[in-house]
Amino acid sequence: MSDDPKDVSTEDDHFDLESFDLPQLRKAVEDQDAQRVFELFDPLHPADIADILEQIGAEQRRALVHLYGTEFDGDILSELDENIRDEVVGYLRPEVLAEAVRDMDSDDVVDLLEDLDESQHDVILEALEEDERDAARQALSYPEYSAGRLMQREFVAVPEDWTVGQTIDLMRTADDLPDQFYHVFLVTPEHVPTGYVTLGRLLSSKRDTALADILEDSFRTFELDEEEGDVAYAFNQYHLISAPVVDADDRLVGVITIDDAMAVLDEEHEEDLLRMAGAGEGSLSDGVLETTWQRLPWLGVNLGTAIIASLVIAIFEATIETLVALAVLMPIIASMGGNAGTQSMAVAVRGLATRDLTGANVWRVIRRETFVGLLNGVIFAVVMGVVGYVWFGSMMLAGVIAAAMVINLVVAGLSGIGLPALLDRLGVDPALASGTFVTTVTDVVGFFAFLGLATMLLL
Amino acid sequence: MSDDPKDVSTEDDHFDLESFDLPQLRKAVEDQDAQRVFELFDPLHPADIADILEQIGAEQRRALVHLYGTEFDGDILSELDENIRDEVVGYLRPEVLAEAVRDMDSDDVVDLLEDLDESQHDVILEALEEDERDAARQALSYPEYSAGRLMQREFVAVPEDWTVGQTIDLMRTADDLPDQFYHVFLVTPEHVPTGYVTLGRLLSSKRDTALADILEDSFRTFELDEEEGDVAYAFNQYHLISAPVVDADDRLVGVITIDDAMAVLDEEHEEDLLRMAGAGEGSLSDGVLETTWQRLPWLGVNLGTAIIASLVIAIFEATIETLVALAVLMPIIASMGGNAGTQSMAVAVRGLATRDLTGANVWRVIRRETFVGLLNGVIFAVVMGVVGYVWFGSMMLAGVIAAAMVINLVVAGLSGIGLPALLDRLGVDPALASGTFVTTVTDVVGFFAFLGLATMLLL
Repeated sequence: MSDDPKDVSTEDDHFDLESFDLPQLRKAVEDQDAQRVFELFDPLHPADIADILEQIGAEQRRALVHLYGTEFDGDILSELDENIRDEVVGYLRPEVLAEAVRDMDSDDVVDLLEDLDESQHDVILEALEEDERDAARQALSYPEYSAGRLMQREFVAVPEDWTVGQTIDLMRTADDLPDQFYHVFLVTPEHVPTGYVTLGRLLSSKRDTALADILEDSFRTFELDEEEGDVAYAFNQYHLISAPVVDADDRLVGVITIDDAMAVLDEEHEEDLLRMAGAGEGSLSDGVLETTWQRLPWLGVNLGTAIIASLVIAIFEATIETLVALAVLMPIIASMGGNAGTQSMAVAVRGLATRDLTGANVWRVIRRETFVGLLNGVIFAVVMGVVGYVWFGSMMLAGVIAAAMVINLVVAGLSGIGLPALLDRLGVDPALASGTFVTTVTDVVGFFAFLGLATMLLL
Repeated sequence: MSDDPKDVSTEDDHFDLESFDLPQLRKAVEDQDAQRVFELFDPLHPADIADILEQIGAEQRRALVHLYGTEFDGDILSELDENIRDEVVGYLRPEVLAEAVRDMDSDDVVDLLEDLDESQHDVILEALEEDERDAARQALSYPEYSAGRLMQREFVAVPEDWTVGQTIDLMRTADDLPDQFYHVFLVTPEHVPTGYVTLGRLLSSKRDTALADILEDSFRTFELDEEEGDVAYAFNQYHLISAPVVDADDRLVGVITIDDAMAVLDEEHEEDLLRMAGAGEGSLSDGVLETTWQRLPWLGVNLGTAIIASLVIAIFEATIETLVALAVLMPIIASMGGNAGTQSMAVAVRGLATRDLTGANVWRVIRRETFVGLLNGVIFAVVMGVVGYVWFGSMMLAGVIAAAMVINLVVAGLSGIGLPALLDRLGVDPALASGTFVTTVTDVVGFFAFLGLATMLLL
């Protein structure tokens, strides 16, 4: 990566952000130089402009949006992080907002609306034409995170007995084709989708070919209230590019495209990663108070579980008083258990997210994790036994720490895979702070095994 | 979710796996009933058949693949996990393997080859036609995880001065169009791509329209040696559907489609999640020995860092001997620090992966995390101070644990964001066991602050 933005060749133009001259932009904002802002933003994709808006401070952002004025379009708004979007909508001039919203695809409008405060809905809805407004209201009536929210209403559908020629003629004369589409859907007279044809196949087939003869195998439909995570999984699993959404009567009402599914997949991953760490739904652009508040609940749970672990230690206070070396060594057992448990847990959370960990193989995986814990337990028991002997010169102490290591790593493997699997079975997101629970188990078991064995064998 | 597979309506057909009757399949394999296997697998997508093969044991898998015989096709092979694929290729009959490979897209063949042992390459390469073999060899000459490996060589390109009519006529007569394509690329006489047209736009435009007049804005090219992670990022960031890959002379040599980019994005997420937990590149289908081996290195590092934390405790052995309550309470400080640090780290790892955490905002985020640590530190200092006082009846002890809590949570915030950012700056994957390093810092600081303050104030 070059430090000098001028070194970056045009071939690197998909890394606009890394070569973007932020100091120049800051200066333009300070100088109230709208022309310079236009020049700097002109070559950028709306997604990159949105990223830049997220990365600067709130005051500069406001000044910048103001300077950018009517150039600020709906695509930038769509790409902004939820809380920044809320903020920007709050001070966008109504006519700019109205103009911005008018250009957006129906799914993007819904995406925008669902994240905004109720009070801001009206500003946006008023900006839309009547049928678009009804459509947006309709979409908002579907459950959050459902296929209904994700779909766009623009699609091309033709009767199932049509030929290639008829379809091409329709498209050539239609003036309201979607901006982006990849399939033509076949529907019954009741508007039930029965298959689809790719545009490539349509273009390369003879005019008199029946559409029914060139259908794709990959056809799948989704229902309006289906969870978006399930939709994203299906797109990834079955390599779908677009898929129809049907209502309760199986009628075609919209289409989901892979780029939206990809965005959902990405969000679900973010959720897994942050939840596993107990970090909530945090975003980099959240403020201090908001972030503190998001992190607080799981820190609270963690404090509770840490106190439980302390109570275990408290049972053995007398032992520690006699042999203070135990206090020195006990965090090692807890740390190794926590680490091994986290390893197993990450594999479990991932396996559950990709649906590779199922009832069919969960016992085999639990067995595997237990044996892995046993093997690594024995290996590190030997290492730690030697370290303990060299350090404290007691064969018995070395034996106790070695035994505790084996016990804790076996339990770590078991709970690392078992707890997420159990949460999943109970209908709870397995990523949801499995971390805290797994380390609690390994802490409690680790302290108990180590101090308990020490009490029995060393006193 | 219904427990009875027969309850599942046809509308749920994209969850084939959950409603699949695995016991029936196991029975069919035991009975050597090939007919029944065909019936059970017939409605399934190759991706689901692959998942089933991954979920059963190795012996059953072998028997099943044998029974399935010539029905076993290249799509199933493409969808299999790397190590299971290795295993299956090892015992597929050569003629079945050859047949399977012949149907595959060029990018899937490369994907298959790159994961296989050298010795198995020849079996596959021999099965290909000569030009496909050359193409596969060529692809394997590009760096691993590069755009060159990811692309397929099938695409449609036409001269940049062509009209819609010329393009449609070409496609209608061409007999080697790709299975799936979404854009027609415009190329110069030197075969340099200069833009693209969507098939939808092509279909809806008049025959005499110049292609140059209906180009899409989103056009971006990738170079052969570009990292696949960068490609996936660009697809997600810029909502690309397909994009051309060019060689060193800027000539069009292949095309990457969004479904491949989505798969890469998914793999990168898996990597982040597993690496953050120090679990390596593990897969659910790996065996005990392999898994033990993958987990061992970071457990080893963790043992080293845990011993460092123990050495800190050892400094204060005399203090603990005098006041054994310290040994009871010290894991609480370490645990809270570890948890808070992990929260910050998850946000940092995610922000770096999505490129939302950059030089432009890293200091602001570090400042935020420090303040969040301070605020949560104060909140939990009060809680733990009260608990400590009630438990041990010492105001001074309560004060010491409260002070240590604040110190450790501030350090947790700082190191949670700072360490991954530093690793990234050094060119190391920030997910790579940042976890171990962050908890080491919080352990060491936590023990030092708590026991150090206790030594100064309580003795």
